[in-house]
Amino acid sequence: MVYIIPSLIEEKISPRAKELIKKLDNFVENECVPAEPIFHKQIDKGEDRWKTVPPIIEELKKKARSLGLWNLFLSKNYHEGAGLTNLEYALMAEITDTGNMEVFAKYGTFAQKSKWLTPLLNGEIRSGFAMTEKKVASSDATNIETSILRVGNAYVINGHKWWISGAGDPRCAVFLVMGKSDPGNENKHRQQSLIIVPRNTPGINIIRPLTIFGYDDAPEGHCEIIFKDVRVPVENIILGEGRGFEVIQGRLGPGRIHHCMRAIGAAERGLQLMIERVTDPSRRTFGKLLAEHGTVVSDIAKSRMIIDQARFLVINAADMIDKVGAKHALKEIGMAKAIVPSMLLKVLDRSIQAHGAGGVSEDFPLAAMYAGGRTLRFADGPDEVHIQQIGKLELRRAREIKKANEKRSKLKPKL
Amino acid sequence: MVYIIPSLIEEKISPRAKELIKKLDNFVENECVPAEPIFHKQIDKGEDRWKTVPPIIEELKKKARSLGLWNLFLSKNYHEGAGLTNLEYALMAEITDTGNMEVFAKYGTFAQKSKWLTPLLNGEIRSGFAMTEKKVASSDATNIETSILRVGNAYVINGHKWWISGAGDPRCAVFLVMGKSDPGNENKHRQQSLIIVPRNTPGINIIRPLTIFGYDDAPEGHCEIIFKDVRVPVENIILGEGRGFEVIQGRLGPGRIHHCMRAIGAAERGLQLMIERVTDPSRRTFGKLLAEHGTVVSDIAKSRMIIDQARFLVINAADMIDKVGAKHALKEIGMAKAIVPSMLLKVLDRSIQAHGAGGVSEDFPLAAMYAGGRTLRFADGPDEVHIQQIGKLELRRAREIKKANEKRSKLKPKL
Amino acid sequence: MVYIIPSLIEEKISPRAKELIKKLDNFVENECVPAEPIFHKQIDKGEDRWKTVPPIIEELKKKARSLGLWNLFLSKNYHEGAGLTNLEYALMAEITDTGNMEVFAKYGTFAQKSKWLTPLLNGEIRSGFAMTEKKVASSDATNIETSILRVGNAYVINGHKWWISGAGDPRCAVFLVMGKSDPGNENKHRQQSLIIVPRNTPGINIIRPLTIFGYDDAPEGHCEIIFKDVRVPVENIILGEGRGFEVIQGRLGPGRIHHCMRAIGAAERGLQLMIERVTDPSRRTFGKLLAEHGTVVSDIAKSRMIIDQARFLVINAADMIDKVGAKHALKEIGMAKAIVPSMLLKVLDRSIQAHGAGGVSEDFPLAAMYAGGRTLRFADGPDEVHIQQIGKLELRRAREIKKANEKRSKLKPKL
Amino acid sequence: MVYIIPSLIEEKISPRAKELIKKLDNFVENECVPAEPIFHKQIDKGEDRWKTVPPIIEELKKKARSLGLWNLFLSKNYHEGAGLTNLEYALMAEITDTGNMEVFAKYGTFAQKSKWLTPLLNGEIRSGFAMTEKKVASSDATNIETSILRVGNAYVINGHKWWISGAGDPRCAVFLVMGKSDPGNENKHRQQSLIIVPRNTPGINIIRPLTIFGYDDAPEGHCEIIFKDVRVPVENIILGEGRGFEVIQGRLGPGRIHHCMRAIGAAERGLQLMIERVTDPSRRTFGKLLAEHGTVVSDIAKSRMIIDQARFLVINAADMIDKVGAKHALKEIGMAKAIVPSMLLKVLDRSIQAHGAGGVSEDFPLAAMYAGGRTLRFADGPDEVHIQQIGKLELRRAREIKKANEKRSKLKPKL
Repeated sequence: MVYIIPSLIEEKISPRAKELIKKLDNFVENECVPAEPIFHKQIDKGEDRWKTVPPIIEELKKKARSLGLWNLFLSKNYHEGAGLTNLEYALMAEITDTGNMEVFAKYGTFAQKSKWLTPLLNGEIRSGFAMTEKKVASSDATNIETSILRVGNAYVINGHKWWISGAGDPRCAVFLVMGKSDPGNENKHRQQSLIIVPRNTPGINIIRPLTIFGYDDAPEGHCEIIFKDVRVPVENIILGEGRGFEVIQGRLGPGRIHHCMRAIGAAERGLQLMIERVTDPSRRTFGKLLAEHGTVVSDIAKSRMIIDQARFLVINAADMIDKVGAKHALKEIGMAKAIVPSMLLKVLDRSIQAHGAGGVSEDFPLAAMYAGGRTLRFADGPDEVHIQQIGKLELRRAREIKKANEKRSKLKPKL
Repeated sequence: MVYIIPSLIEEKISPRAKELIKKLDNFVENECVPAEPIFHKQIDKGEDRWKTVPPIIEELKKKARSLGLWNLFLSKNYHEGAGLTNLEYALMAEITDTGNMEVFAKYGTFAQKSKWLTPLLNGEIRSGFAMTEKKVASSDATNIETSILRVGNAYVINGHKWWISGAGDPRCAVFLVMGKSDPGNENKHRQQSLIIVPRNTPGINIIRPLTIFGYDDAPEGHCEIIFKDVRVPVENIILGEGRGFEVIQGRLGPGRIHHCMRAIGAAERGLQLMIERVTDPSRRTFGKLLAEHGTVVSDIAKSRMIIDQARFLVINAADMIDKVGAKHALKEIGMAKAIVPSMLLKVLDRSIQAHGAGGVSEDFPLAAMYAGGRTLRFADGPDEVHIQQIGKLELRRAREIKKANEKRSKLKPKL
Repeated sequence: MVYIIPSLIEEKISPRAKELIKKLDNFVENECVPAEPIFHKQIDKGEDRWKTVPPIIEELKKKARSLGLWNLFLSKNYHEGAGLTNLEYALMAEITDTGNMEVFAKYGTFAQKSKWLTPLLNGEIRSGFAMTEKKVASSDATNIETSILRVGNAYVINGHKWWISGAGDPRCAVFLVMGKSDPGNENKHRQQSLIIVPRNTPGINIIRPLTIFGYDDAPEGHCEIIFKDVRVPVENIILGEGRGFEVIQGRLGPGRIHHCMRAIGAAERGLQLMIERVTDPSRRTFGKLLAEHGTVVSDIAKSRMIIDQARFLVINAADMIDKVGAKHALKEIGMAKAIVPSMLLKVLDRSIQAHGAGGVSEDFPLAAMYAGGRTLRFADGPDEVHIQQIGKLELRRAREIKKANEKRSKLKPKL
Repeated sequence: MVYIIPSLIEEKISPRAKELIKKLDNFVENECVPAEPIFHKQIDKGEDRWKTVPPIIEELKKKARSLGLWNLFLSKNYHEGAGLTNLEYALMAEITDTGNMEVFAKYGTFAQKSKWLTPLLNGEIRSGFAMTEKKVASSDATNIETSILRVGNAYVINGHKWWISGAGDPRCAVFLVMGKSDPGNENKHRQQSLIIVPRNTPGINIIRPLTIFGYDDAPEGHCEIIFKDVRVPVENIILGEGRGFEVIQGRLGPGRIHHCMRAIGAAERGLQLMIERVTDPSRRTFGKLLAEHGTVVSDIAKSRMIIDQARFLVINAADMIDKVGAKHALKEIGMAKAIVPSMLLKVLDRSIQAHGAGGVSEDFPLAAMYAGGRTLRFADGPDEVHIQQIGKLELRRAREIKKANEKRSKLKPKL
């Protein structure tokens, strides 16, 4: 078993969760990792690249489900969930991946859930989240320009989105689209709505898949999409008009933690590859194994230390969500989000360096992991925004500190 | 209350420990911090600087004892201990300070304990640990040159030590001296012995107090001492001849954790002072509070993030010591030791910068804390040694990784 | 004019060189940069990707030649050169690119030059340098395993190379191959030879183009090649048997400087794009231009400062080569090589971050520049090797420092 | 000779300047460095610490003057100057130290010069610059609160200053005091005046010397001073009422460069001490010299690289001042000021680390140099202010970049 639960929190993990973690770790190590080269072979190099899904993926999904390793991510607050705490799932997310089904589970009506959540959970369809816009700095959600206008019993959507991950996938059946239904509202956080838009609605034009560095991530892809007079029934609104901001706030907390833990899993893999490489006896320089050079040893130690530190931030945030909810864990979630992606990139960069030219090539997963990891530094808000927010939350302590000072100054014994 | 137990481990802290932490926090905030300027006033500026102990110290000690906040540090493995786990005490050590009584408690004979441990625990005397040598790189303990020779029923000690903290204090009554009793032993870790040397034994010459940056830390001081033909009875040996290395290994684990947690407490104080300063309305520049400049907010966020990450490393190490003992927590202890001092210095440096010239002066505790913190980067082994050791421990995983690869390669499905 | 000659060295640049720099800058700004999207359109997306060269390239080459901006790189030591100093060309290399014609010019026989250098200089053919090997750490040249065996009047070459840049290009007509002709030689630096191998010699098998962060850099490519019983006439050896190490040493000095200056040019472009982006009025967040956020201003300042510092290292090294030759400028060249690639990556990374998701996509050149820049951290030796070498050269001063100390200790006045 | 002129600018240094540099280097190496322990012995430990100047200082001054190494700092624009360019003197400043006589030389009336500049240049008296204030953030000069009020033929000064360096020295005879003579002026940079205040004027109360990391820097000291109804004749104003801001702007350019070059000299010394230490055969750890550990070699290389890069920034700024004047070299001066102090601290910190506990003590000059160097990060404006200014100057290029883009977009060939 490669994965180890940090000693510090072992007592908090139920026997059932421990069992699942172990099974999951085995599945990933012995089924998924060996399947990677098969996956790459099965992806078409030509035009059909976006039309088929490599069969190995469906095989693995089937297997995962038969092992009970399916849809573990919905926490025990949900009827549909696997009954794990956020902390427990965070440990598993270090090993696996999820979608945006949480929105449906948390905010969907019964009808919305029946129509979309069920097939999503079954892995029959996939979905895309259409938030980012090409022409504005949409990391500030108040900048969003896509319009969602009520016309009779329908909403009409017009907007220019990009970086809609998964939109290239032939299984993608539905988008959640963020836009402004009330752009004149004085409360800037009540202008937005989130709406369900089936993939095959007329007026949706998928312009192109974008690349991340040189990767197109087919068949899922990250697409640029124009929504032109796209019309959906009013019941497709999520939670109600003007509540889009609220919904994405609720979605982001646990989602960010999952992203972070997957990034930590990726960092562990990067370090593992580095250890493998520097102890490879055929890679001697100047008469020594790479692992015998002091600076290489030091790089490995530094990677271990930043991974472990980052992991504690994430599991602490997950634990806070379990205890007081995402709203009251903003600082903890923000710290995880601000630290983890940079940590991952540092670890991968050292591993790439130890691999030399091989490290940037397709012969190792490192460069592709780096490219993916790089997007995490602005996905769901750039580092800078999170850091400013953490700083401001910390600065709120100023008042309490001043009070304590004043109290002390009265207590101060005479000299 | 300023101090907060991290959510992640709250369940592991007993109600009694929580109560003690709260009391301790109050005592430090409302008694010790306000006493600092009094302490500095009471220290003599002239030649008597080394002869008297500021009375405020004795007052505070008395008060601490009456509150039950005395000698909390010996873990529940010791008869004399306060019955706390290492994890619980680690949280308190973020607020307080200890000596090297653990050696007596853990390795002392009944006679040695009666004579020295009792008055030490009562705060009647103090002790010094004489390890570091002036002429060799004593961070590698096998380099030590002080000799401890058996002559009849006595040991004769000759050596040149420095940085013996506390040796300047008029209450200092005893040294623990590290030296070689068997320099020819093939096993380099069996050459050393640790021996009890009463302060008033003939042949001890305290040359001078050394300064750390410009601070002499009177009356405790960090002294250079020559031991010349110093003679003590054979029963003063700790644990037995040739077991000095073993003793200091056992001493260093928990001791390092305490150092680390005190450093984290210092970092919290540094950040608190920074928050206070940058929100001070009289310190506006270019029309803004310092706290309104984006780079200042960012610095505060970064300080909060590195403090929290470092704290988790330390409490995880403390928890490992509780569970499997210091010997099996070498990597965890090493990581805490390698990360925390640098973290502290970064936090203090940012706080100093926010204070401008005041920050390096005696008007704030920051520069003195920095000077003290700087020594932690080589005390008990320089960062470099710990980092190399962590890297080597991590590299031991190479074998296990290779095995998993081989197993996988057999499992690999055909393409 | 975008490019500015640093004030500090203005006096050292001849009027002719200044004129050329200005012309070159104009050509790049107004011809090459606007041609980039055309280049990308002209590259075939299908299988012919490796068979044709985008016509825009040949057009630009023709134009450059007509403007006298062709083959400026050979310094005035060469008959074929443009008569510039290394320093002067270094300034231009910040704007342009070269091949490995220097080897032919510096070490080629008359016959070798006639056959290969002339068409290379004319841009009719291209060449590849086959040094790196797949199975060993070839950053240590003594590890090379390719064999070059004399058999009668021919040499027979066997080996497995990769990262042969330009080998995918249909114009590539010749390789310079590094291998061992005398693997048993006690002098490890006399085992290697460098040999000319025409592209169409039987036994050359180009396995595949490799990717760099997903980019295949068609049509030039970075290829994996197996040389199997490849036979060339004895006169194809460069300089003589056993002199391969010497040749690459001579080649690397000025070549590294050119790489460095091109990297500095890339960094300037990255910063320029960042400035453009953060002052774009459509990219406001939280009511401000990006350029009005303190941390963004700070990032721009830091980029400017590291670019300028790195440039001085490079032009100082170029100047040293002009004055004392590459052999005596090892420390200066090494410092440039060790600093510049990391500097470039930092600048590009900040610029990517300011561009958000666009920054990693094909809509800006930043991600592709990053991928290319990343390879510079191990091409021609990884950072680590250069840093160790610089440290060792610096440590040679120890003797001189000790002598000065001894001299001083005699002078020391009595107290 | 320890000091070497960078190759890149050798041609710009006159033979006379080279000769002076060589002489100066010798004088420092063979006279000043060996005098350091004497200086420390001669400083009184008791109350007379502030009353006498160690005689060794006067001896060295006499010797320097006899060698023609006196007052080299005034550039050739001044009648009183040594006729060197700023670039040439910058090289020397790496080896020596100056005062604030430039203000008198540049802005003084004939009478002011006769009275103060002559004895200052002769080393008979010393002066202090009273700018920083205790109660406001005086890094923003518009915050200054000291008042300078015209009353009849006198100015009356009231204010609370601190960090007046040199004010503790018994030779200190005059202060230049910055205050507001016209606090209501709409132009915030016309409110200030600079005025000459003889040390013995009634109403000057030197409260205390401040410490820097525990050092009091006796006998010069950094003092807190209250000016209460201090009255000086109107002719003591420098340049005229309301021109204080202008004067300090003019003063800061070359002064900053001198500070920077001295800092570079200090960094060279720090590195030299590190090289000495790590090659000391008595300092072996784990069977190796410190200099044989890869991470130590790497630290030395990194120090060499940041020193050399920083030096080029400084001499480039000096050269710009020579060519276009300080006003037009703001970015270049700012970059030197922002980079050099942090560089110095990094180099010293590594050297301290290599020295272990000795490094923070009085046995090596490193900790005291660190303390002094730390103040440079806020003296004459904190790093943050310089970095913001550099960023803003760089951002001014936005317009030019946009213009070039527009021009290019017109040129863009059709696809």
